[in-house]
Amino acid sequence: MSDQAHEVVLARPVTATPVAADFVVVTRDRAPPKGDGSLKVRPLFLSLDPYIGARIRGRHMGEPAPAPGEPLPGFCVAEVQESRDPGFAPGDCVVTEAGWTDLAWVRSDTARKVSADIAPSLHLSVLGMPGLTAWAGMTQLARTGDGDLLTVNAAAGTVGGVAGQIARNLGGRAVGVAGGPEKCALVVDRYGFDACIDYRAVDWEAQVAAAVAPGSTIHFENVGAGQLSVGIRNLKPYGRVVLCGLADHYQADAGPAVTAIGPLVGKRAAVFGLVVYDFYPRWAEWTALAEPWVKAGRLTIAEDIGHGLDSAGRQLERLMRGENVGKTLVRV
Amino acid sequence: MSDQAHEVVLARPVTATPVAADFVVVTRDRAPPKGDGSLKVRPLFLSLDPYIGARIRGRHMGEPAPAPGEPLPGFCVAEVQESRDPGFAPGDCVVTEAGWTDLAWVRSDTARKVSADIAPSLHLSVLGMPGLTAWAGMTQLARTGDGDLLTVNAAAGTVGGVAGQIARNLGGRAVGVAGGPEKCALVVDRYGFDACIDYRAVDWEAQVAAAVAPGSTIHFENVGAGQLSVGIRNLKPYGRVVLCGLADHYQADAGPAVTAIGPLVGKRAAVFGLVVYDFYPRWAEWTALAEPWVKAGRLTIAEDIGHGLDSAGRQLERLMRGENVGKTLVRV
Repeated sequence: MSDQAHEVVLARPVTATPVAADFVVVTRDRAPPKGDGSLKVRPLFLSLDPYIGARIRGRHMGEPAPAPGEPLPGFCVAEVQESRDPGFAPGDCVVTEAGWTDLAWVRSDTARKVSADIAPSLHLSVLGMPGLTAWAGMTQLARTGDGDLLTVNAAAGTVGGVAGQIARNLGGRAVGVAGGPEKCALVVDRYGFDACIDYRAVDWEAQVAAAVAPGSTIHFENVGAGQLSVGIRNLKPYGRVVLCGLADHYQADAGPAVTAIGPLVGKRAAVFGLVVYDFYPRWAEWTALAEPWVKAGRLTIAEDIGHGLDSAGRQLERLMRGENVGKTLVRV
Repeated sequence: MSDQAHEVVLARPVTATPVAADFVVVTRDRAPPKGDGSLKVRPLFLSLDPYIGARIRGRHMGEPAPAPGEPLPGFCVAEVQESRDPGFAPGDCVVTEAGWTDLAWVRSDTARKVSADIAPSLHLSVLGMPGLTAWAGMTQLARTGDGDLLTVNAAAGTVGGVAGQIARNLGGRAVGVAGGPEKCALVVDRYGFDACIDYRAVDWEAQVAAAVAPGSTIHFENVGAGQLSVGIRNLKPYGRVVLCGLADHYQADAGPAVTAIGPLVGKRAAVFGLVVYDFYPRWAEWTALAEPWVKAGRLTIAEDIGHGLDSAGRQLERLMRGENVGKTLVRV
């Protein structure tokens, strides 16, 4: 027996930064797949992340762009409605890549069961892939600990915001960089960073230098080449650099992002490329660390929520323009 | 009582890659300094290294260029003739920065006593600063071990040649890159590399890729941006990159060396900036490892020797042009 579902797909091929008008909501029949090992899920929240903008135009990790009408990439937190796997039961809360839809059948081996006693949307942000990304970069690559001083950009976003809170919760300090006074206030007041510099200020580079003097020990890069060079310049000798995201370059039509080699040698920097996929097998380590922090109010994130699948294209456009404040979600 | 010494100095300010005509030999009086703690030394060999070309034109680590007539930077291996320090005796073999001269008084706390049962010139190459550089990069930063596959350029030079021999002596393999068939033959036949690719060949990038397929685990960079990008491209995921020298950029008048960020992320590369000064306190660790290898014939270097101080300028010019084969020295 098949159900009706709504799904957001591309209305046309996308060759530039995606905008709301690139998307359309269609109606689909959902028939259960043959055999066992599948779940019927009802997504509660859809996660929108910067890499999706790059994926949609075929500019992420060599993966092909989805064609108009094809499923779009994106994780959701969902409630299981029907289970054909003894490991899951109706009512379970799972994170799964169901597409931009309000009803889907997914393979149970691609669904990750998550705690039901945490607000569901957090499984897409702090406890989800962006949080895991921050954990991997801070604890596994930069090996943060007591006394570290972190600089991180896109600090109001989930990866940056969580990275700074990890630094602080493990005994260090954090200076964020974000765009605009609203985001900067969020980073300091709600995420608890020691400072946050608005990169739209003319003298923002000097402000960063002053905030971290005599230097940071870790720089976590989420944006791209221009901000990276500032991060490296303010690093102490033997500092660590996590190369995580290149959000600027996901959408820009400029040439490839580059960084100067000389300062890396002069600083004796250690630079680590981070791809979060590698850390999926270790998700439980992060949630074991993070869930008590969430419950104790020591780890939080702002949410920028669009209501209904109709809002998904606009939410992605907001994200790509940097107009979102905090984690970008769609309440399905 | 003062002695007469010969010394090579700049004949004129140097603003481009140094050439032989930039240098002149002058005669100096050498009077002993007042008080204790000094040694009169007779240099046997002067070491010429790529950083000297950069130093001389004020382009190395922010140190000022020497003016015409001032002492030039450079290490020598020397015999102690007179000691005003009870830790040294006449006949001792030391490495010290005496300048480009055949007689000097040096502070004893800047002289490093070295084994007399090794050919003296090796204390400037394999067992000297270039060898220490290779050791630091390979063992302390890249943590080489069994099964590694190294790519290293300027492989006929001391840093590159020793890096490859360290890789092999510790259970790995090494593929070098060098300029011209003579250097490539040296790297394979004498240094024992598994292969060496001539970067003057039109298809050298494809040759490197074929030699290391399916990929290297360590890339050791001695040259600059263009060769670095090839090294990174051929790296396996999770490969390590040692950023050691930028010989091309020491002399070039091009802009600063840059590297693309995207491939570092995609490869999950770990990149380490190396400044050998940091490892001076650990020289004995390297000589303890290296001297038995030297004596057993498992660690060697070709030498490109100029005879007499008159040859020093030409030897530096040869080095900066890449015309040297092996370690560039002047027999004083």
